[in-house]
Amino acid sequence: MEIYRGRRLWIESRAIRMPGGREREKVIVHPGNAVAILPIDGDRCKLLRQFRYAVGKHIVEAPAGTMEEGEEPIGTARRELIEETGFAARTMIPRGFIYTTPGFTDERIFLFEARDLSPSSEFSKDEDEEIEVFDAALRDLDTMILDGTIVDAKTICLIHLCRWCCDA
Amino acid sequence: MEIYRGRRLWIESRAIRMPGGREREKVIVHPGNAVAILPIDGDRCKLLRQFRYAVGKHIVEAPAGTMEEGEEPIGTARRELIEETGFAARTMIPRGFIYTTPGFTDERIFLFEARDLSPSSEFSKDEDEEIEVFDAALRDLDTMILDGTIVDAKTICLIHLCRWCCDA
Repeated sequence: MEIYRGRRLWIESRAIRMPGGREREKVIVHPGNAVAILPIDGDRCKLLRQFRYAVGKHIVEAPAGTMEEGEEPIGTARRELIEETGFAARTMIPRGFIYTTPGFTDERIFLFEARDLSPSSEFSKDEDEEIEVFDAALRDLDTMILDGTIVDAKTICLIHLCRWCCDA
Repeated sequence: MEIYRGRRLWIESRAIRMPGGREREKVIVHPGNAVAILPIDGDRCKLLRQFRYAVGKHIVEAPAGTMEEGEEPIGTARRELIEETGFAARTMIPRGFIYTTPGFTDERIFLFEARDLSPSSEFSKDEDEEIEVFDAALRDLDTMILDGTIVDAKTICLIHLCRWCCDA
């Protein structure tokens, strides 16, 4: 049964047979899939500080965005990197995917490491987004996670998957 | 405006003033907060394999669960560890929190490292959950993340925050 269908989210209620045999009505949130990108330039990377209305505050995140109809993850990654940072990447390395919170949503985020960056001529800011781009040293990322500067799950996973904690 | 209120999820639509000045109707999913625990015994830890109806498959996760009314995160961690694994922890170390996916939900998961484990007499399986508990070597966790055995965001964040990649 459909509970809600919006521009981005589709929410349904479905009867699920539980392991014990009982049926239970469960709500599943389908936000579509997304990508997150860690753009790296030498010993630094680009991160964003942006206001998230769902949590009511500014948080630090890797560039990210939702896949549009017909888009492959790598295409979304290239598009979102330009839209959010103004930089294009010649090299985009897939770093797997994550389920963000499989207790109630099927959302997957595909992770990418972006290399060989250059300013893009296609850059035009999304007026609905207030994003501050800043550079962080790769060697500082672990500290930023441990001290709570970075609390966004996809960003922590991306940093882990890109292996800075060990390789840098 | 309330879209849905269930046992676990509360979903609302709210007019948000965007940075560009326009108001937009945005949907926010409130699942309540949760905890995730990495229970460690020597050079091994306990993980779960469980069926997640939202993604339609079995996935590997750290023990986790939702905070009940009036519970503190550490109390939920102690309760859920027993409920899901049958083990109690004498030592429960807070490892920060994460926002699972702040694009549409305010869900926070508080992370804990559990030590000094012993079988609990309070253990009784939840009949709605089909959970297989298994032991994994700490030194194998990085490989399990890199090869896609672990794709659950909170579990990857927990492993990162507990610093096995560097300390083990």
